[in-house]
Amino acid sequence: MTQPLRLGIAGLGTVGVGVVRIVQNHADMLEKRSGRRIEIVAVSARSKTKNRDVDLSPYDWEDDPVDLAKRDDIDVFVELMGGDEGPAKAATEAAIAAGKDVVSANKALLAMHGQALAEAAEIAGRSIKYEAAVAGGIPVIKALNEGLAANDITRVMGVMNGSCNYILTRMEDAGLSYEAVFDEANQLGYLEADPELDVGGIDAGHKLALLASIAFGTQVDFGAVTLEGIGSVTIEDIRQAADMGYKIKLLGVAQMTGRGLEQRMSPCLVPDTSPLGQLQGGTNMIVLEGDSVGQIVLRGAGAGEGPTASAVMGDVMDIARGFRMPVFGQPAKDLRKARAAHSAVPAPYYLRLQLQDKPGALAKIARALGESGISIDRMRQYEHQDAAAPVLIVTHKTTKTALDEALDEIANTGVATGSPVAIRIENL
Amino acid sequence: MTQPLRLGIAGLGTVGVGVVRIVQNHADMLEKRSGRRIEIVAVSARSKTKNRDVDLSPYDWEDDPVDLAKRDDIDVFVELMGGDEGPAKAATEAAIAAGKDVVSANKALLAMHGQALAEAAEIAGRSIKYEAAVAGGIPVIKALNEGLAANDITRVMGVMNGSCNYILTRMEDAGLSYEAVFDEANQLGYLEADPELDVGGIDAGHKLALLASIAFGTQVDFGAVTLEGIGSVTIEDIRQAADMGYKIKLLGVAQMTGRGLEQRMSPCLVPDTSPLGQLQGGTNMIVLEGDSVGQIVLRGAGAGEGPTASAVMGDVMDIARGFRMPVFGQPAKDLRKARAAHSAVPAPYYLRLQLQDKPGALAKIARALGESGISIDRMRQYEHQDAAAPVLIVTHKTTKTALDEALDEIANTGVATGSPVAIRIENL
Repeated sequence: MTQPLRLGIAGLGTVGVGVVRIVQNHADMLEKRSGRRIEIVAVSARSKTKNRDVDLSPYDWEDDPVDLAKRDDIDVFVELMGGDEGPAKAATEAAIAAGKDVVSANKALLAMHGQALAEAAEIAGRSIKYEAAVAGGIPVIKALNEGLAANDITRVMGVMNGSCNYILTRMEDAGLSYEAVFDEANQLGYLEADPELDVGGIDAGHKLALLASIAFGTQVDFGAVTLEGIGSVTIEDIRQAADMGYKIKLLGVAQMTGRGLEQRMSPCLVPDTSPLGQLQGGTNMIVLEGDSVGQIVLRGAGAGEGPTASAVMGDVMDIARGFRMPVFGQPAKDLRKARAAHSAVPAPYYLRLQLQDKPGALAKIARALGESGISIDRMRQYEHQDAAAPVLIVTHKTTKTALDEALDEIANTGVATGSPVAIRIENL
Repeated sequence: MTQPLRLGIAGLGTVGVGVVRIVQNHADMLEKRSGRRIEIVAVSARSKTKNRDVDLSPYDWEDDPVDLAKRDDIDVFVELMGGDEGPAKAATEAAIAAGKDVVSANKALLAMHGQALAEAAEIAGRSIKYEAAVAGGIPVIKALNEGLAANDITRVMGVMNGSCNYILTRMEDAGLSYEAVFDEANQLGYLEADPELDVGGIDAGHKLALLASIAFGTQVDFGAVTLEGIGSVTIEDIRQAADMGYKIKLLGVAQMTGRGLEQRMSPCLVPDTSPLGQLQGGTNMIVLEGDSVGQIVLRGAGAGEGPTASAVMGDVMDIARGFRMPVFGQPAKDLRKARAAHSAVPAPYYLRLQLQDKPGALAKIARALGESGISIDRMRQYEHQDAAAPVLIVTHKTTKTALDEALDEIANTGVATGSPVAIRIENL
């Protein structure tokens, strides 16, 4: 008779309650599929009295998650509190020190301290699993670490923050400004308590850093992610990009290049007919490219009670089955520090500028681009509005350095009003 | 020092050669990620002398795959021969009897004999893994068995035969008849030696039966799959479905209903804006729906050397890591025989008929539908051509029984020329 697998759950927000529900409602199914009974022994959260619409009376209560993590009667510490410091970090470290396996949904903690935690876990012979930390219910970490393990991964890419994708698609659908949709999303509770985690690309950047580490066998390095949020995306950009056949997405891209590891999280244009271009609302999508498998696209809910709890329980069941692997897919001590690429690989860019109504103005723009070695793929000038004419340009592939040079040169011509908008185009 | 994992590979067609290439080119990476060296010890194929553009000289040769399967110096028998009887079956059985783990790309063998093989493997304490048998490089079996294991799966659906999807999208793009594109695909080598395996939906039906078994915890039962191939799909159907906002796909659907397990592989209409509707060419897509996770969509190459070899090696690496699970996700002895649903759940249907140029003709059609309890969602009549007018009808949800009744009634009216076409619409 196999012993049950005993869980201690720290954090009883949306995800924690979802995990409790799955364990309560699907006990027999979980046992059939994982070969072991899965039981919750004890829980911990900030408030003991909050009504959570789930029966917690069968479980012991711990006020301090560190005490929960160290309990003799749990096998797995399930960390669903969040935050890259404080109780989440202390309790995770305590769990590993006490010989527990850890299942975590905490992208910030792993992106900031993943290497140290992985080394500690591997010395202790324990697992840290965190499928729920990236793209909610989509089993992308399992796909990278296991399903596609025989591939040299060439690129990982995707829309990893549902709130940002909601804001961008809602702006387009309703014709609203960024500010208006931001306020709406905030009131609906779609954004983190600190909204900059979402709209600044930080949350998505944490996820990208984790995927990059697994994909390329490097130490997780969130500090090397080039971050740019969606705060500067305007409804005009969205509309005029649509005119040219593109959608704007907060896109994460990680790839290993001859100049080092490139990790960027920034607004990009993608073809509106591509899988990424067609992604609406809060859905996430991850694109994995490998030398043998080609391109694999995974799509699903990136957040929410059910999807995130599904990912947490997938990890718990792997532990119940005895499936153990290194935290980032390879032994932590063997992971090298990646050299960060200082510039992104060349790409086409979309430029939007306001041209003054002067003879020869467009020629000056074209010349400035030409002199920086940038050739124009497509260009459109619209009617003048208030003495300025919107001009959209899609360039051929160019480096960011050449583009910045051209933008300086364009500023010097004196024929463009305000600052030009430049957005990278990522082809799929 | 961990011992290497030793492979014996039977079958050196496209996939077998792909597996040899990965093992030769990525030896160090495979070891880093799986924790063990992976070596090929011996191989077997029909022709020893065929030039395969890969160096087989380091490996022993066996003329008989059964002898290969029983060799003392292999740990894993990799079966890439295909066929549901004959050498593939004999060698797989021999491998299990000899205490080997098996990795297989053979959907026919597993769909026909999976239950018996699973029981034998589990008694022997061995694994049979077959990620490559379903949807090529897409890690869908892993997603179902592991990533989504905490979900009560409600529906599994998808485009699982790239050749059929190629034919249907090529018909539409080039405006060619089924026959013309079939011949073209056959000449390009896109179809199986027996093309009926592809265009008759048999190959895709094998895959659906395997997914259904895992999803619903039932004994694999290919005989219960309702099969309908794409041979009767005309270019007119494709064009006129497009007019109504739909694409025609050879769609597999498995769902557990109150009336039993429904497994169908048949041409269906899907909205042209849905992920399935937008699937072009030889790509595969699987949609998994679970009670917690909601809808997960997986997309990638469903065939070809690299993608299929990637899936084979993913399984091999799981075995190297010691990851063992029951063949169909739950112990084979516990799988129940599913009661087959005798009719599909109600759905909207698309009807195409040729109406004679007679007063009151359309009214008779509408009345026939109404009398069978079928209401019309949308209807279009086109101009008369050769004394007949094409009529397209999209119904509201109805049962197949009511629909067949209405079609009989329509035939009795005498105002429709030829047989009406009726295609199920699957909403996503």
